[in-house]
Amino acid sequence: MIHSINQIGWLPGRSGVRILDQTLLPTEERFLDITTVEQMAEAIRALRVRGAPLIGIAAAMGVAAAAGRLDGSPVRRRENVLGACDVLQATRPTAVNLAWALDRMRRRARSAGQEEDLRGALTAEADAIWEEDRAMCQRIGEAGLPLLPDGATVHTHCNAGALATGGIGTALAPIYLAHAAGRRVQVIADETRPLLQGSRLTAWELTRAGIPTTVIADSMAASRLRQGDITCVIVGADRIARNGDVANKIGSYGLALAAREHAVPFYVAAPRSTFDAATPHGAAIPIEERAPDELRGMGGSSARPTAPDAANIWNPAFDVTPAELIAGYITDAGLLGRGELERLVGG
Amino acid sequence: MIHSINQIGWLPGRSGVRILDQTLLPTEERFLDITTVEQMAEAIRALRVRGAPLIGIAAAMGVAAAAGRLDGSPVRRRENVLGACDVLQATRPTAVNLAWALDRMRRRARSAGQEEDLRGALTAEADAIWEEDRAMCQRIGEAGLPLLPDGATVHTHCNAGALATGGIGTALAPIYLAHAAGRRVQVIADETRPLLQGSRLTAWELTRAGIPTTVIADSMAASRLRQGDITCVIVGADRIARNGDVANKIGSYGLALAAREHAVPFYVAAPRSTFDAATPHGAAIPIEERAPDELRGMGGSSARPTAPDAANIWNPAFDVTPAELIAGYITDAGLLGRGELERLVGG
Repeated sequence: MIHSINQIGWLPGRSGVRILDQTLLPTEERFLDITTVEQMAEAIRALRVRGAPLIGIAAAMGVAAAAGRLDGSPVRRRENVLGACDVLQATRPTAVNLAWALDRMRRRARSAGQEEDLRGALTAEADAIWEEDRAMCQRIGEAGLPLLPDGATVHTHCNAGALATGGIGTALAPIYLAHAAGRRVQVIADETRPLLQGSRLTAWELTRAGIPTTVIADSMAASRLRQGDITCVIVGADRIARNGDVANKIGSYGLALAAREHAVPFYVAAPRSTFDAATPHGAAIPIEERAPDELRGMGGSSARPTAPDAANIWNPAFDVTPAELIAGYITDAGLLGRGELERLVGG
Repeated sequence: MIHSINQIGWLPGRSGVRILDQTLLPTEERFLDITTVEQMAEAIRALRVRGAPLIGIAAAMGVAAAAGRLDGSPVRRRENVLGACDVLQATRPTAVNLAWALDRMRRRARSAGQEEDLRGALTAEADAIWEEDRAMCQRIGEAGLPLLPDGATVHTHCNAGALATGGIGTALAPIYLAHAAGRRVQVIADETRPLLQGSRLTAWELTRAGIPTTVIADSMAASRLRQGDITCVIVGADRIARNGDVANKIGSYGLALAAREHAVPFYVAAPRSTFDAATPHGAAIPIEERAPDELRGMGGSSARPTAPDAANIWNPAFDVTPAELIAGYITDAGLLGRGELERLVGG
């Protein structure tokens, strides 16, 4: 590991899962020791652990740890494991990675023989999910590393970093590797309203790793890009359509327009699992609208409302950046151009 | 008056000034009765009254009201008035309108004859400043009214409304007039980080006037413009350079880029006093950087920091929108194209 954020880990003897409580960042670095499925469900629901890959890993580890304390017959214990998977999946019903990781745990539980050590099998499966994610982050980092020469300045949006994955992140992975290679690299982080993942999380994990980071309001991005010293923009992706259009955190599209205006290349970093060949283009991607309260206050709090009750709120979680604004895709299958995306299928 | 926000007014007998405390919006509509220069200085410093034209008017009215309680010889009373002007001007040293309004009050105090009613002269001068501002807002509204047909949707940024002026605002003036004329008009208001003038102030004053308003995060503007139903963007201006480049609240430039991408005309509404023929172009406009704390929390509060101490903050107050992105200038001298800006000089 080239950094030491410890966003997730096993408790001694794999008896439970230790997570960093991300709701307390950036002011407090507090770890939670989770030993029951109920505790893990609460942690996922309350966003104490977040980021699509990381909640999949956390849920899988939580299921494995809980299996160590089950009594009864093999059949009964297997049913308990499947029940735990259902409880955890219900915490974030639209999270694709969560469902995918729990499906792997379910399949492993079902395939376990009567004599097999159920807990050992599930622990190994959770470790495999985590390790695959770490390796995926590493490959994304290596694919993007050539884009960041010594002295590079990277502009990013939201948090596609270590705090969202089991490894060194996706959009931030090339930055961590460049820093580890001794290159001077600095980062401009959009704060990312409404939930402030840029200022709360990206700025926290990067500065903790010793990478100079400057937080700006989302509305300042165009002015910052105009200054002429930004090497590239790198953002994550929630879904990549067949034609290369990308759904990502709201604000990515406006950032891409500003980057084009100032001839700054705009890259999308994502694992191949993000590529959805069944979606022909961005207009076919459904855009989730989130609760108005996120915009009526700061970070979801409405203790002191910032908009009048009489006003409507529009709060889409994502936007779509058209493929023609994207210079390349930094993936675990390498740095790809738009015409090479089919290499992400299967893989 | 076509609305009833009462952002400012005289107390009975012009014995003082009643202001709406804008720091409590949008949750509380509380008025402050100000009878001393010290109270007015505090109100301006604390942004209880804000907006370049409005603080000029408030300061002038405050000086006039205070003059009514002065004792002593005419010379002594005049010196007290000049001292009051100095106290108020020091509250916002870079506010051009404030200095301009107080200079008018100083000149009037100096020109007052020994036998003249000093208080009456100053009250009349303050009334003239206020009335001229109201008329300027009205003329801007009339210049922009033809841009807003029945069913129009206007996208705006920050607050260039009644709460910033003594009348119906600048960018919002055409909207108020269209509404008063019985046209259906609705508004998209960027929340305007860091200080949230869009969600706190623009959304408040428009919904209070019965104009449907939707608040979005600044980062959502490009996605909203893509939807294809925005009639035009109208923003205010802090300074218009000779070539038509406009300095305005940070975020205006990115909004203008997104508007051009979606073929939505981008208008700037401002009084002729905003046109600065001595500034050749936008690059010559100094951009004020404000306190980092505005971005380390919500609305200037850092009770619960949102960015780590180790992160740098870049917090420019304004950006520059190049003239080629601007469809027209909605002014008190009419709706002008870029080549007609010289009509704003003198006037």
